[in-house]
Amino acid sequence: MDFKGMDILGGRQFTREALDHILDVAADMDRGLKEERSLKLLDGYVLGSLFFEPSTRTRLSFETAMHRLGGSVVGFAEAGTSSVAKGESLNDTIRTVNEYVDVIAMRHPEIGSAKQAAEVSDVPVLNGGDGAGQHPTQALLDLYTIQSERGRVDGNTIALCGDLKNGRTVHAGVELYKHYDCDLIFVAPDALKMPPEITEQLREQGVEVKETPDLSVALAEADVLYMTRIQKERFDDPVEYERLKGSYVLMKGMVERTNPELTIMHPLPRINEIKSEVDELPGAAYFRQARNGVPVRMALLALVLGVVD
Amino acid sequence: MDFKGMDILGGRQFTREALDHILDVAADMDRGLKEERSLKLLDGYVLGSLFFEPSTRTRLSFETAMHRLGGSVVGFAEAGTSSVAKGESLNDTIRTVNEYVDVIAMRHPEIGSAKQAAEVSDVPVLNGGDGAGQHPTQALLDLYTIQSERGRVDGNTIALCGDLKNGRTVHAGVELYKHYDCDLIFVAPDALKMPPEITEQLREQGVEVKETPDLSVALAEADVLYMTRIQKERFDDPVEYERLKGSYVLMKGMVERTNPELTIMHPLPRINEIKSEVDELPGAAYFRQARNGVPVRMALLALVLGVVD
Amino acid sequence: MDFKGMDILGGRQFTREALDHILDVAADMDRGLKEERSLKLLDGYVLGSLFFEPSTRTRLSFETAMHRLGGSVVGFAEAGTSSVAKGESLNDTIRTVNEYVDVIAMRHPEIGSAKQAAEVSDVPVLNGGDGAGQHPTQALLDLYTIQSERGRVDGNTIALCGDLKNGRTVHAGVELYKHYDCDLIFVAPDALKMPPEITEQLREQGVEVKETPDLSVALAEADVLYMTRIQKERFDDPVEYERLKGSYVLMKGMVERTNPELTIMHPLPRINEIKSEVDELPGAAYFRQARNGVPVRMALLALVLGVVD
Repeated sequence: MDFKGMDILGGRQFTREALDHILDVAADMDRGLKEERSLKLLDGYVLGSLFFEPSTRTRLSFETAMHRLGGSVVGFAEAGTSSVAKGESLNDTIRTVNEYVDVIAMRHPEIGSAKQAAEVSDVPVLNGGDGAGQHPTQALLDLYTIQSERGRVDGNTIALCGDLKNGRTVHAGVELYKHYDCDLIFVAPDALKMPPEITEQLREQGVEVKETPDLSVALAEADVLYMTRIQKERFDDPVEYERLKGSYVLMKGMVERTNPELTIMHPLPRINEIKSEVDELPGAAYFRQARNGVPVRMALLALVLGVVD
Repeated sequence: MDFKGMDILGGRQFTREALDHILDVAADMDRGLKEERSLKLLDGYVLGSLFFEPSTRTRLSFETAMHRLGGSVVGFAEAGTSSVAKGESLNDTIRTVNEYVDVIAMRHPEIGSAKQAAEVSDVPVLNGGDGAGQHPTQALLDLYTIQSERGRVDGNTIALCGDLKNGRTVHAGVELYKHYDCDLIFVAPDALKMPPEITEQLREQGVEVKETPDLSVALAEADVLYMTRIQKERFDDPVEYERLKGSYVLMKGMVERTNPELTIMHPLPRINEIKSEVDELPGAAYFRQARNGVPVRMALLALVLGVVD
Repeated sequence: MDFKGMDILGGRQFTREALDHILDVAADMDRGLKEERSLKLLDGYVLGSLFFEPSTRTRLSFETAMHRLGGSVVGFAEAGTSSVAKGESLNDTIRTVNEYVDVIAMRHPEIGSAKQAAEVSDVPVLNGGDGAGQHPTQALLDLYTIQSERGRVDGNTIALCGDLKNGRTVHAGVELYKHYDCDLIFVAPDALKMPPEITEQLREQGVEVKETPDLSVALAEADVLYMTRIQKERFDDPVEYERLKGSYVLMKGMVERTNPELTIMHPLPRINEIKSEVDELPGAAYFRQARNGVPVRMALLALVLGVVD
């Protein structure tokens, strides 16, 4: 398959074949990292790491991935240290930086910003989150985690819980899961339900989808529980935030009683959705999931730069 | 020529011979980058990238230049993450950092700061902008751009438009252009005119200089139009800023009608001085100009560190 | 000695044998840097440089040390660009980053934070300052500086002056000096005295300790004068800060008259404690001391990563 020059913008762009290939290359990277600390596939290449919004995980794992491929990084960790503070348009920033670097990873608060950047950039753009839009590299590392935790993706019932309305991670995720033989359970309060057009489309495409506000349904039926943070910054009304944030809090006893084999995932940072006692469970996969960001992003960088097929 | 150990502080320090040599080395770097993504001339060297004021272009292209030479970078992108926030003097910061690194690139809001830094530093200091003072690496990449866009620098009429009073880029620029057989046109409102001592000195040195507040004169007569931003941060009075910022706005039709061959440059970021429709013109050189920051800064780094003659 | 996998958390953890070994390896690094700009001992390794509080010296010298060993760096220079801004716990940030990198250097405003981080991290943690707690890498480079300035550590009378109550550098320092045959003089106003439990413990361990509010006593009797900043950020009461900050200001004449051979050290940044005229004295060692941060931190990185014995 030829990924060379491709932008990674959203979950919808991938075929099953493309997804399987990315998972295979990520597994290759993972094996490579067990033997050496850095594979030298991108020696001399430069990544532009443009974070208009702060991020620990996405930025640091993109940058680690680049270093573990032998490449270098330039960029910024917040908009304030870029020319955006002087009023420069996103297009001009991207058209400038794409003259310097070989590939761009970016996070930006506006939906569609990564797509817009890709349109003006001559080098591949990897979307590291565009507001409440998409976050495809997260979705891909989630898919890789399900495979590595459960042996394969097919055949699993995946419950997604939390803010499904605004969660870019879950929006990008369901676009991937639909290519696999997985049932989905959406667990959210009414105010934060998965947008109906997404749910409907999944059903039209033959995906089994259950919706419930009740976390215990997911606990009973799921193989994988994907918790998400109810993000304060996505709410207009702080009172509504306070009312809802405690709705879905996972505790150790709940899992042990109902589903001890459950694989528990979270894109992190978590605030209170998963009690720290849960970390002791063998199925608590979220830090391994974070770790998977490195081989998956290494795979994407190597693929779009054409140094692996 | 021996640049080893030299500081790059302002436009005034260069002879014609030195300028021609820098342009030659930059062209070598440019050719090198067409063959390999990184030349390994500065393997093991460390650049201190000290940006007391934010910058996208200057900082990222300096850092990219260092990486494309095989070197590494340490530094900061704003004063807030440095010891300046604790009240440390510039001299002490420089005397400390020059103990760590092999070369320093810096931007600082105060005129004369780079010169002051160079006086206490044992390693070469490259001025990436000192307030309303100088910005010589920008001036050098501008010169390189005129050469690469027009074939040579000599023989061109260069119009400089915008805030010529405070524009460090144009102040550094005219110090270079005067060594070439170029006529200059200064286009600015009265309040933002080129300081008379600069204009007079140029005339004394035999440079043909025309001054006008009228952009259409430049459009009719220039080979190169160098637009600059009217920078809000240089004004004490916001009302005066609002009145003047719209004075010089370049539109596509103006160029097509009067001078379709015109080379259009801008140090960027632009706010509104050049409409985005102008980007479609073949003479719109500003993103290529940004790109030239990499080979020109590679040349300077390699020269002052003595790894090329 | 086996340092592999060790955390560097505070001054108290070292034996005399361990200290001597670190000084020896640092001297090896120093000699190596005289021959080559980068030793390639950590090629492919990645340092996580996590600065929840700003720092010029500690951060830049850790990062330079990593580059001079051939390694790479990811991280942040202030808490605002990390997930802490989203409410993530320190434990979760560390557990995530330790999945990416090979070693962590961190600064954090809370006492005990580095120890807490080390408890959850699988990779070695190097404490770059935990609030008013410890700062062991600074203490080690201070020790190395005393050795390189005076020929050896044993036999020196070391005066520590300034805010000895809150100064993490001096707290970590006395834990090292007690292993050597050194007399100590503590010079501080009553409000900023060395905590009595530290002074008592030193005396119990057989260290000769003199306490005085009078700088001239130290000037007369010390071989090494270690000045520290009276840090505004450690005071609750700004009036108290203003009253005390001028108490201990070193001037050139004072040293020349009483003790021209005095070795003068300071962890920097200095504000007003040492007049800039003092820089001209041959014993003014503080910029050489800053420089020593690189070989000492190279030694620590190489030791805890097990690439040197």
